[in-house]
Amino acid sequence: MLDANLKRMFEARSVAVIGASADATRIGGRPVAMLRDKGYTGEIYPVNPKREEIQGLKAYPNIAAVPGSVDLAICAVPGQLVEDVVRQCADKGVAGTVIFAGGFAEVSDEGATQQARLSAIARETGMRLNGPNCMGFANFANKMTASFHPAFARDMPEGKIGLVSQSGAFGGLSAMMAVDRCVGFRHVLTTGNESDIGVADCLDYLVADAGTEVILLYIEGVRDGPALLDALARARQAGKPVVAVKLGRTEAGAKAAASHTSALAGADRIYDAVFSQFGVHRVNAIEEFFDLGASIAVGGLPEGDEVALVTVSGGVGVLMADDADARGLKVTPLPAATQAKFKKLVPYAGVNNPLDVTGQIINEPDLFEKAMRLVLEEGSYDTVVGFQGAALTQPGAVQPSLEMWDALRVAYPSKRFAIASLMPQDVQQLFEAQGIPAFREPTHATRAAAAGAHFKRVFRRGFTWAPDAPAAADPGTGPFTESAALDLLGAAGVPTMPHRIAHTPEEAAAAAEELGFPVVMKILSPDIVHKTDVGGVRLSLASSDAVQQAAEDMLASVAARVPDAQIDGVLLAPMISGGVETILGVHVDPVFGPAVMFGLGGIFVEVLQDVTFRMAPFDTDEALRMIDEIRGRPMLDGVRGAPAADIPALAEALAALSRFAVAHRDRLLSVDLNPFVVLPKGQGAMALDAVVEMKGSDGHD
Amino acid sequence: MLDANLKRMFEARSVAVIGASADATRIGGRPVAMLRDKGYTGEIYPVNPKREEIQGLKAYPNIAAVPGSVDLAICAVPGQLVEDVVRQCADKGVAGTVIFAGGFAEVSDEGATQQARLSAIARETGMRLNGPNCMGFANFANKMTASFHPAFARDMPEGKIGLVSQSGAFGGLSAMMAVDRCVGFRHVLTTGNESDIGVADCLDYLVADAGTEVILLYIEGVRDGPALLDALARARQAGKPVVAVKLGRTEAGAKAAASHTSALAGADRIYDAVFSQFGVHRVNAIEEFFDLGASIAVGGLPEGDEVALVTVSGGVGVLMADDADARGLKVTPLPAATQAKFKKLVPYAGVNNPLDVTGQIINEPDLFEKAMRLVLEEGSYDTVVGFQGAALTQPGAVQPSLEMWDALRVAYPSKRFAIASLMPQDVQQLFEAQGIPAFREPTHATRAAAAGAHFKRVFRRGFTWAPDAPAAADPGTGPFTESAALDLLGAAGVPTMPHRIAHTPEEAAAAAEELGFPVVMKILSPDIVHKTDVGGVRLSLASSDAVQQAAEDMLASVAARVPDAQIDGVLLAPMISGGVETILGVHVDPVFGPAVMFGLGGIFVEVLQDVTFRMAPFDTDEALRMIDEIRGRPMLDGVRGAPAADIPALAEALAALSRFAVAHRDRLLSVDLNPFVVLPKGQGAMALDAVVEMKGSDGHD
Repeated sequence: MLDANLKRMFEARSVAVIGASADATRIGGRPVAMLRDKGYTGEIYPVNPKREEIQGLKAYPNIAAVPGSVDLAICAVPGQLVEDVVRQCADKGVAGTVIFAGGFAEVSDEGATQQARLSAIARETGMRLNGPNCMGFANFANKMTASFHPAFARDMPEGKIGLVSQSGAFGGLSAMMAVDRCVGFRHVLTTGNESDIGVADCLDYLVADAGTEVILLYIEGVRDGPALLDALARARQAGKPVVAVKLGRTEAGAKAAASHTSALAGADRIYDAVFSQFGVHRVNAIEEFFDLGASIAVGGLPEGDEVALVTVSGGVGVLMADDADARGLKVTPLPAATQAKFKKLVPYAGVNNPLDVTGQIINEPDLFEKAMRLVLEEGSYDTVVGFQGAALTQPGAVQPSLEMWDALRVAYPSKRFAIASLMPQDVQQLFEAQGIPAFREPTHATRAAAAGAHFKRVFRRGFTWAPDAPAAADPGTGPFTESAALDLLGAAGVPTMPHRIAHTPEEAAAAAEELGFPVVMKILSPDIVHKTDVGGVRLSLASSDAVQQAAEDMLASVAARVPDAQIDGVLLAPMISGGVETILGVHVDPVFGPAVMFGLGGIFVEVLQDVTFRMAPFDTDEALRMIDEIRGRPMLDGVRGAPAADIPALAEALAALSRFAVAHRDRLLSVDLNPFVVLPKGQGAMALDAVVEMKGSDGHD
Repeated sequence: MLDANLKRMFEARSVAVIGASADATRIGGRPVAMLRDKGYTGEIYPVNPKREEIQGLKAYPNIAAVPGSVDLAICAVPGQLVEDVVRQCADKGVAGTVIFAGGFAEVSDEGATQQARLSAIARETGMRLNGPNCMGFANFANKMTASFHPAFARDMPEGKIGLVSQSGAFGGLSAMMAVDRCVGFRHVLTTGNESDIGVADCLDYLVADAGTEVILLYIEGVRDGPALLDALARARQAGKPVVAVKLGRTEAGAKAAASHTSALAGADRIYDAVFSQFGVHRVNAIEEFFDLGASIAVGGLPEGDEVALVTVSGGVGVLMADDADARGLKVTPLPAATQAKFKKLVPYAGVNNPLDVTGQIINEPDLFEKAMRLVLEEGSYDTVVGFQGAALTQPGAVQPSLEMWDALRVAYPSKRFAIASLMPQDVQQLFEAQGIPAFREPTHATRAAAAGAHFKRVFRRGFTWAPDAPAAADPGTGPFTESAALDLLGAAGVPTMPHRIAHTPEEAAAAAEELGFPVVMKILSPDIVHKTDVGGVRLSLASSDAVQQAAEDMLASVAARVPDAQIDGVLLAPMISGGVETILGVHVDPVFGPAVMFGLGGIFVEVLQDVTFRMAPFDTDEALRMIDEIRGRPMLDGVRGAPAADIPALAEALAALSRFAVAHRDRLLSVDLNPFVVLPKGQGAMALDAVVEMKGSDGHD
């Protein structure tokens, strides 16, 4: 599945540095120095026509002169020379080339044209391109740095984290943070202008790379949405946690992002939908981003949502309980017998959960371990967080504490642990080196536990992603009348109200008899958008005579008011009463493609913008999660004595609509089902109106 | 205003340590050692009947034997000796005593009784008590430590932060964090069991203390709500920022807090109301709590909400823009001419705001300063945040950067600054020592700027707090009929619908004529709660005859169905149509007293719990802010073609209701105005129903 050249490039056993410099501080010199000095064991080929030797290594006049095959070429030449070098690399059969130089699509139309020529070379030859205008990448497992960022010159501990960053500067910063915390990256991949390799390619690589256990994704603006969705689906199926920062979530941020990157933005709420659907955990600060990646890399994922809090401070225990609860962890009480046991040790201890050993810890330092062992032995917790106050600022306390935690970790291998304490950074590193995520801030311990539990929850549930459904039969370009739109959707499995078309008042009366009274009647015309304004809607018609008269009046009224409109007759449908009014729709995002929208009707949408999205297609389980996301969710359970609504029918309709959207993805512009009524439980749901727009259509009914 | 003994105690010039120990590691020895060694210049009197000398200081057999006056007694004796010692201290005329020992109200009813005797001594003699079961306090300005917590033995930098903590352990932790960051506390006050001195007393002291510029408040459960409100009002009036952590915001947290502290909880949403009303900034993590306190202490408050972001990384610039926008800062674009100037320097720079100097900084290191100066000189920003990437990890870069920032700070004294960079802690300290708040995490710089702007906004607006309004005339205990309740509120300035009482069908018809048709009629009885169920409500009565007939029917129906009910006649009121239905109410919190509730009617309250509170009394400005807090706020501006509602009338009604609540605070249980209709702009607002409950009342209409 994974492109062979991509893998060859990111795991290169031979690297040519084109534009290699003898000066190890220059852009062309740094990669040579880092490859040579950081333990890389593959071949290094400096290329520079002016020198026989570079930094002690034999130099070659050009890439063609390099003996044997080259997996990776680092192109450190000025922009105007890039295209030639890239062609030479392709001719040589290089698997992939990194291009540092800027001056391409990020600066001008001319640059964009030059960049497009690079893309074409990649497309034609299969050689992969990273950049231009990028900071390159580093494979720390391979001790290979294909970058000039000084951060990569520092010693990276062995790691399990893969980072994909659209920002080169951020990639470098992250590497520094990793070194500071002593939690290593395995890969840092920055993408620059993405003439060829984009975020999705990098993600694909990390998903396929067995040594990468957690993925950090730093997105400014994705260029190929569907590819990202496919890659996220693979990460999800592989059970690899993805933590993401996506810029531009506010108006000011979106404006700044638009001026910073040439990529299409895509609506931020669509990103939220994507993240929710694919189980990506979104965060908004660098420290949280890296903290979650590091703590999952160190401690792994818990088996479930239950957390025990053991604390030397009652107050901090409450603080952690608040944070854990707010983030969806279950702060389950200790078993009563366990509570009683600890009460015997410390009569005034808080023993519910948190388990507060109290200030008595000063007199009996082993109380903390006793508390931890009780909780582990007798509770059914997935994660145990221990807060040890300032104890670990006393040097003598560190070694015993390390030993205690290690013994617990070994004794209870299925449990996850976290220690919070006002410890110095070097002590934090000692804990994390032995597999215990360590935090100075107590709520960051619960935050990490909650993120871990989130991923486990996501990975446990079913997941399907099948965007490549065969296209449906072409329904034509429309415009579609309400009747045609209802039929189109109905045929696709989206429940719609029963309806009949009549062309004369007599036909209308007969159709109404078939449907049963009372009925609603609407004018049917592709040219009339606002039917009410022209007398084109009649409600609650209770008899044949009433229907016939109403049809006569309506046809006359519309003919008089909109003489040029094409009239396809009238539409008749039973009056539906009761149920909860919702709105279903399809919105086609310019980056990601068709997304299904769901919201409650009326003020929920108009005043509260209480809507949610999912990328099409999805199944009913996903639809149910979607339904659960809206604030007005209780409306569907019945309020003010109303019966509970038929939520399974609603979920099936959403899933069917998502399949419809995908089957017509090449042509679909939008769908709007408003209202879509969800009847009481067992009675189903149905669209009472439908608007479908396809490309080529220039209006709607 | 401030209690003289409280001030004398917290700023003691003479301290007796009762139960002083020669062993500097013991609880009775630590305070002596810290007083002697940390630079305290007042008198130190160890008290111990068994020794002539303690840790090199002359010891006294008891407090009475100490020569001269004693401002502060530190009582380090076991619990059973405390009461005697406290009496002796009071007899000696000591201003205040700190009691470390536990075993009082936190453990048993007997302990609570003993504690009550201590409280009584304080009340009778005026001597103040800190504790029992407390960690004491430290006055770093005075270099005086009245605690045994080892954190206070570390060297505290000079500081402007005052901390009040209900958790002793947390007080100690905070002191350690301050030392680590090199941003000093001025006072750390922990309150323990609060037999006398509570959170409000400590807050009062810090407000009065000129050297305290920012206050941190760590609350587990307040005992004296009204006192806290008064103290917060004084902090607000003094323009001192208060940042608060209040535990128990979730169900799990509230449960844990209840088991941890003996204090009444008070509803968490009432704390939110208090914080909103008094301008307190609430946070939920220790690192944020301390970070905001430290950055305000270091950098002060900005003049307003506008922030400029200068960055060496476009991506991090967007991240900061997102964070700033989400937190309510204004990320205003740079003036066009300024943008053009910078474009000349770096043609491809992002110049709107953020100002992104780009990777060009590597070739032109002075670009950052040029960008900063342009922004400061030509923009109208209140705060300028600069992100310098990893530059400050290079030792040679630190000094020039420090000098640049200092020069800017001096040149633009009215601006506030923040630097974000992946800098080591010692570099962070250097920046903060010269008045530039420094952050490793970019979004923490914008977070701090937003908190500062929040406080400035709060301090700029008007503020009144007058809970001591004279009590209103006693309205009796009720129960109040709807009519009586409407009259009571109407007299207090809360607009209510016009209404008449009639005792016979004829009177009803006449009353309806006066009111104008159509009218609504309701049975009037203190014994009937659900009027509709007994035929006690009739709507839309359009004529005298209809009214007379309806009254006859209603009186007969009610008499038949509820023969024992006391019937006070019928209530007539005009049918009100249009307007927005809201709900106004008064809820009496057990800790804080009467709070006014506001929400929109219908699903907004029932499904979304979209309500907000304020402590009574408040003015119309505060009421307007309250109205702005609900999610359904746009409903009042008119949706779906409805006219905008009379918001000033609504605000006046809320303020009047708050005055009513305070005037009756000794007796009021609750008020419920549902619906309270806000008519279109200029047409006012009125309660269509009213329920008032007072103590002693056992029902309602």
